[in-house]
Amino acid sequence: MTALRYDITTRDWVIIAPERGLRPRAAGTSAPAVCPFCPGHEHFAGPDILTVRGSDGGWRVRVIPNKFPALRIEENVERREEGRIFHSMGGCGAHEVLIESPDHDVRLWEQPAGHVEAVLAALQDRHNALLGDPRFELVSVFKNHGAGAGSSIAHPHWQIIATPVVPRHLSQRQRVASDFFERTGECIHCVLLREELRAGTRILSDDADYVALLPFASSSPFQVWILPKDHHSSFGRARRDLLRPLSALLIDVLARLDEALGNPDFNLTISTVPRGEERRDFLWHVEIVPRLTTAGGFELGSSMSINPVPPEDAARHLRSLPGRSGRPLHPVSARS
Amino acid sequence: MTALRYDITTRDWVIIAPERGLRPRAAGTSAPAVCPFCPGHEHFAGPDILTVRGSDGGWRVRVIPNKFPALRIEENVERREEGRIFHSMGGCGAHEVLIESPDHDVRLWEQPAGHVEAVLAALQDRHNALLGDPRFELVSVFKNHGAGAGSSIAHPHWQIIATPVVPRHLSQRQRVASDFFERTGECIHCVLLREELRAGTRILSDDADYVALLPFASSSPFQVWILPKDHHSSFGRARRDLLRPLSALLIDVLARLDEALGNPDFNLTISTVPRGEERRDFLWHVEIVPRLTTAGGFELGSSMSINPVPPEDAARHLRSLPGRSGRPLHPVSARS
Repeated sequence: MTALRYDITTRDWVIIAPERGLRPRAAGTSAPAVCPFCPGHEHFAGPDILTVRGSDGGWRVRVIPNKFPALRIEENVERREEGRIFHSMGGCGAHEVLIESPDHDVRLWEQPAGHVEAVLAALQDRHNALLGDPRFELVSVFKNHGAGAGSSIAHPHWQIIATPVVPRHLSQRQRVASDFFERTGECIHCVLLREELRAGTRILSDDADYVALLPFASSSPFQVWILPKDHHSSFGRARRDLLRPLSALLIDVLARLDEALGNPDFNLTISTVPRGEERRDFLWHVEIVPRLTTAGGFELGSSMSINPVPPEDAARHLRSLPGRSGRPLHPVSARS
Repeated sequence: MTALRYDITTRDWVIIAPERGLRPRAAGTSAPAVCPFCPGHEHFAGPDILTVRGSDGGWRVRVIPNKFPALRIEENVERREEGRIFHSMGGCGAHEVLIESPDHDVRLWEQPAGHVEAVLAALQDRHNALLGDPRFELVSVFKNHGAGAGSSIAHPHWQIIATPVVPRHLSQRQRVASDFFERTGECIHCVLLREELRAGTRILSDDADYVALLPFASSSPFQVWILPKDHHSSFGRARRDLLRPLSALLIDVLARLDEALGNPDFNLTISTVPRGEERRDFLWHVEIVPRLTTAGGFELGSSMSINPVPPEDAARHLRSLPGRSGRPLHPVSARS
């Protein structure tokens, strides 16, 4: 019986999900004896929500219901208020898992670009399908890699969570973007992109369709953002033919992080707007956060972070590596 | 050369502190051969900032400068703006360490209450002394216990960080509290305290001076708040004679968490107001957060949390344990 509870002191919504306590233990500690995502174990999950098949008829990518969902489509969205403090609502939402490939041991950046493209297309399809349910405000699309990044199953996968509220962190970002647009008439991320390109020192890659960079105010080491040049606020509206160059860039960026940091645990999230609406004040983008530092009481209590690696230094190092393309990146180092 | 950088997309300040990369590795991985906080190694640190001595003249509690400070008192607070995106200021601030006792292996809840009281009094003294510097907006006081909570040295200690800005998380909380007060004329935490006492199910302890409870919208399992009944907004203004009952309660709460969870990693933070000012809209309090879950991409991207243990269940379990007093807590279970 999951529920959403509202913290009146912070305005955060929290998902109270007792069923989640039953999950298999984090990968690396005591993984389940049998991988529920490997071929032959398809019966562990419910029926597929979406299946991408190869020319031999076998599956290449599957989307299935999460067996231990944080939110359920069957719960209601009615809000309850007891007294002045205890505000809650039913744990209504959706929680799906995308299994990246039948291969247990092949990581995303070791896949061919065409396969990564199929993964991104399936994520976009599910993002848009879930937004068809008017109860859902936001669809979060993300990948946790490694136990230190919160992954409980080693087989490469993504998660898709639809929530009936806009999380505060996102509504805060939206408000900042909207304020910026009101004042300047420009999208905050587009200005950031332009000024980062001019500065040059934190750019990892700059091609016809995307820029990969390490943000000026990175809160932890080796964070990478990938921003599209084709302006849409929602991942759901990204042009389908631009998923291929995104796949190639994603492979290269993740391969460089793997080389630089030795297969680090990381989170990859797609930053997008609620309800998939088209807005001029926000640019959807990808954020990759390697989990190299542990937040302590200072970070928890203040939301300030201590980053021991300036993003310029991290960018210089990542550019110098061969990456997936087999050669160091030169285009921007001339500017730095 | 540390600096503060401002993230214009979130309004968070980030501390870029390259020197922090040189810290001893996290406890449990490869601890330094010699503990820099044990007696006999006092020369590793600079001269004591504050020393509490026993009747034999030996030190019982020491406050020293952090050898790898996130912020330095010598840096300036001038703000720099390059273009519209790159806002920063010097890494001005203070970063001190309180060594809890000469004993490397005795944990806070195994100390006598009088010793814990001396620790809390020293923390309060440093909090107030640092606020005497007009450049500092906030003094954060916290304890990280265990590598999973971000602690790099096993010897029991606390940290004190003075920042020249109010971190966004805190300014957000202040704003929420101030809005609530404007609307209702009451302190948000006092109303929370009253309604939690009425509900009863999440109360761990209720004595003459303090209440320990597990908040309704706890974002992770077994979070405990300790709230004072004597109203002050700043920890710096808490009555000195009430640090003794706080010490006894803290020992009991931490001993119960130790028993229930097997010496879990945890963060303990003191929630207080900027500049130590006396305000009617905020109540200083202690927050204890065991680190039992790992935040993943969903939490990072949305700031929503998934908590698999309802706080009522955690409270019931903690009440049933003998604790430091050697007997289960009964006063509130009758109400649940």
